[in-house]
Amino acid sequence: MLAATTVKMAAMDETMSRGRLEAFSDGVFAIATTLLILDVTVPPGSGAHLAHALVKEWPAYLAYVTSFLTIAVIWVNHHAMFSKVTVADRRLVFTNSVFLATVAFIPFPTRLLAEYIRGPDGAQTAAVFYGLTFVVLAVVFNLTWRAIAIDRRLVRDDVPQADVRAITRSFRPGVPMYAAAMAVAFVSPVASALLYLAIAIFYALPARLVTRVRS
Amino acid sequence: MLAATTVKMAAMDETMSRGRLEAFSDGVFAIATTLLILDVTVPPGSGAHLAHALVKEWPAYLAYVTSFLTIAVIWVNHHAMFSKVTVADRRLVFTNSVFLATVAFIPFPTRLLAEYIRGPDGAQTAAVFYGLTFVVLAVVFNLTWRAIAIDRRLVRDDVPQADVRAITRSFRPGVPMYAAAMAVAFVSPVASALLYLAIAIFYALPARLVTRVRS
Amino acid sequence: MLAATTVKMAAMDETMSRGRLEAFSDGVFAIATTLLILDVTVPPGSGAHLAHALVKEWPAYLAYVTSFLTIAVIWVNHHAMFSKVTVADRRLVFTNSVFLATVAFIPFPTRLLAEYIRGPDGAQTAAVFYGLTFVVLAVVFNLTWRAIAIDRRLVRDDVPQADVRAITRSFRPGVPMYAAAMAVAFVSPVASALLYLAIAIFYALPARLVTRVRS
Amino acid sequence: MLAATTVKMAAMDETMSRGRLEAFSDGVFAIATTLLILDVTVPPGSGAHLAHALVKEWPAYLAYVTSFLTIAVIWVNHHAMFSKVTVADRRLVFTNSVFLATVAFIPFPTRLLAEYIRGPDGAQTAAVFYGLTFVVLAVVFNLTWRAIAIDRRLVRDDVPQADVRAITRSFRPGVPMYAAAMAVAFVSPVASALLYLAIAIFYALPARLVTRVRS
Repeated sequence: MLAATTVKMAAMDETMSRGRLEAFSDGVFAIATTLLILDVTVPPGSGAHLAHALVKEWPAYLAYVTSFLTIAVIWVNHHAMFSKVTVADRRLVFTNSVFLATVAFIPFPTRLLAEYIRGPDGAQTAAVFYGLTFVVLAVVFNLTWRAIAIDRRLVRDDVPQADVRAITRSFRPGVPMYAAAMAVAFVSPVASALLYLAIAIFYALPARLVTRVRS
Repeated sequence: MLAATTVKMAAMDETMSRGRLEAFSDGVFAIATTLLILDVTVPPGSGAHLAHALVKEWPAYLAYVTSFLTIAVIWVNHHAMFSKVTVADRRLVFTNSVFLATVAFIPFPTRLLAEYIRGPDGAQTAAVFYGLTFVVLAVVFNLTWRAIAIDRRLVRDDVPQADVRAITRSFRPGVPMYAAAMAVAFVSPVASALLYLAIAIFYALPARLVTRVRS
Repeated sequence: MLAATTVKMAAMDETMSRGRLEAFSDGVFAIATTLLILDVTVPPGSGAHLAHALVKEWPAYLAYVTSFLTIAVIWVNHHAMFSKVTVADRRLVFTNSVFLATVAFIPFPTRLLAEYIRGPDGAQTAAVFYGLTFVVLAVVFNLTWRAIAIDRRLVRDDVPQADVRAITRSFRPGVPMYAAAMAVAFVSPVASALLYLAIAIFYALPARLVTRVRS
Repeated sequence: MLAATTVKMAAMDETMSRGRLEAFSDGVFAIATTLLILDVTVPPGSGAHLAHALVKEWPAYLAYVTSFLTIAVIWVNHHAMFSKVTVADRRLVFTNSVFLATVAFIPFPTRLLAEYIRGPDGAQTAAVFYGLTFVVLAVVFNLTWRAIAIDRRLVRDDVPQADVRAITRSFRPGVPMYAAAMAVAFVSPVASALLYLAIAIFYALPARLVTRVRS
């Protein structure tokens, strides 16, 4: 094991271009979103009442749209984050891998939410588990950003510190927002599910629309 | 929520390079087309009459080819649309995300069409639902193009306004064409399915072939 | 329909950069190969004799390796073909789409080969259907190359005509080779399956190894 | 067959740019990791005790994290390897294809590990089969590197021979490490599974953390 460690030291200087890290990440984002549709189904033999069966699948559509939009929002933020970087080191590659493993995990809680939100059993667990996934995701996302921004480790020289601080601030509400929506699941799983969708739409919508609504 | 909004304002200036938006979109296009084959199957234990079982799967091949070609055509148009853009803003990223969610949805109505078009039950619903998906897709596609072209918001300076208008015009028939094919499903679901294929081939074929046929 | 045709004419001049066409194609190649593993399974509840169940899955491994290597070889040839092109026109995009639809179809005959080659029923049909898919693929591949090479339509000016002819010649054996291997299936489905693998290995192996074996 | 061989010779000079080889490889890496989640499921109808069912799925999470991290580590090393290359020849393309076929195979042993590690039957076989896959992968990985590095066949001129040797050394522990973890499966399948995870974390962790732990 000692030999292996020494060998690893030798390779440690290796940095990775931002381009290939982004290409791999974009692949995981694109596949994770597209796989979501595999879990949208009607029960076999629904022919005689297919229209009714399609309507009854509303939780599957809700879960699909919520997870798709949320991953899209995360992808946009991932892009914003990496646009400040030139090269990646081993720590960023590691945290980014854990981050991508969490993104690629999303189809599983999505499937559970779609299947169990109608209840009567399991709705609460499914809604809590879904929220928990996004709490973890938000934590890992912040850790990934820290691997870039702490002491400006990997931040490009021409990026003003004010921009770095703005990004740090903009990632802060993620954990409490998802924790709050998750807490709502203990009262009403459906309300919790709608909150997850509301968070995604709120982040995805152009800011001007949000301002217009608020004024 | 107010704090979160303010934070979002700070990040709003962020624009996204066309390149990474196209890479993510191409990923979704490529995966959505390739996943279609997962729904082409013969019933388990078809060994004794496999050739017959393969022939009986014609609706699955029809649905596969139709959805594959249609997504390929949409991909070409998506490319044509984005070739006029340099940077994307939040509104384009948002509408493009909704657009991609609709593209990635296509395997679901394709699966239903393949399974229920033979009837006796569900054929009409499956054909209408398939058409409805493409009506929605055509609407979202037009909204995405509006996010680029309205007041030349994101159009490159060197693109003549005549080209912009030509693209706007070329996207216009999508909604009525799919709505018409969908209406046919109320009379004959199979005719409707063949129309969806015809639309895809018509758009995919080289223009010269179309002209030759017409003259 | 007339209006739609006219509109289409307007957009016809549109050509597509080789880069994005290759990116989309690479996506389909990569996904089609990777999806193959979804069909490698052992029957549920194989715990008590898992080692035995794993050995019994040899047709699945054979089919997996054959299809993977074949798609890799096709991908290499696709690259060689497109390296002679600068821009794509609608005809190339169309034939390439039909070509990709055939590539993305491969997991289906692969699944059938894996499931039915052991027989007793369906082995012949599965082996013929597998070969038929590659005969069609070879035909469509030649059509795609014709869309590039006929009258040097889309060939780069600096590519010597001798190179174009060499590629044309190198694609010629595909159809008869797969047709012959397919014909063998009527005598022995397993021999036919081994021939498909042999063809893939023959094309994939470095030429020097082949020469060494032959001398 | 002779004619086909001659034809192949003609095309043999063809080399492939590193870029497209990496793009295809990255696609396979991204898809192989993202498909892993399809095998994380709870039994149908788990509603009444969903929380319990989720906890019981710990082997699925363990297998998911282990395979995801391992593929991420392999991807990083693949990148390091290819960063020394400018063009690929047929031999590299061939060994890289076999390598990618092994990477894309990973979801299958992952699924078996997740399903059978709890036993009572099949746990040993599943853990051995998982390790065997990575032994093979490490062998093929070394062969791929040999296709690049032996006699500096495809190594860029500006890469010092010391770097080449360092990479060769760093890839050496892979086979014995996985063989050892595989051997442990004969005593304790669960210990073996934890070792696979430990190896992945050890390679993924930033070197500084490892040093800190060791001092």
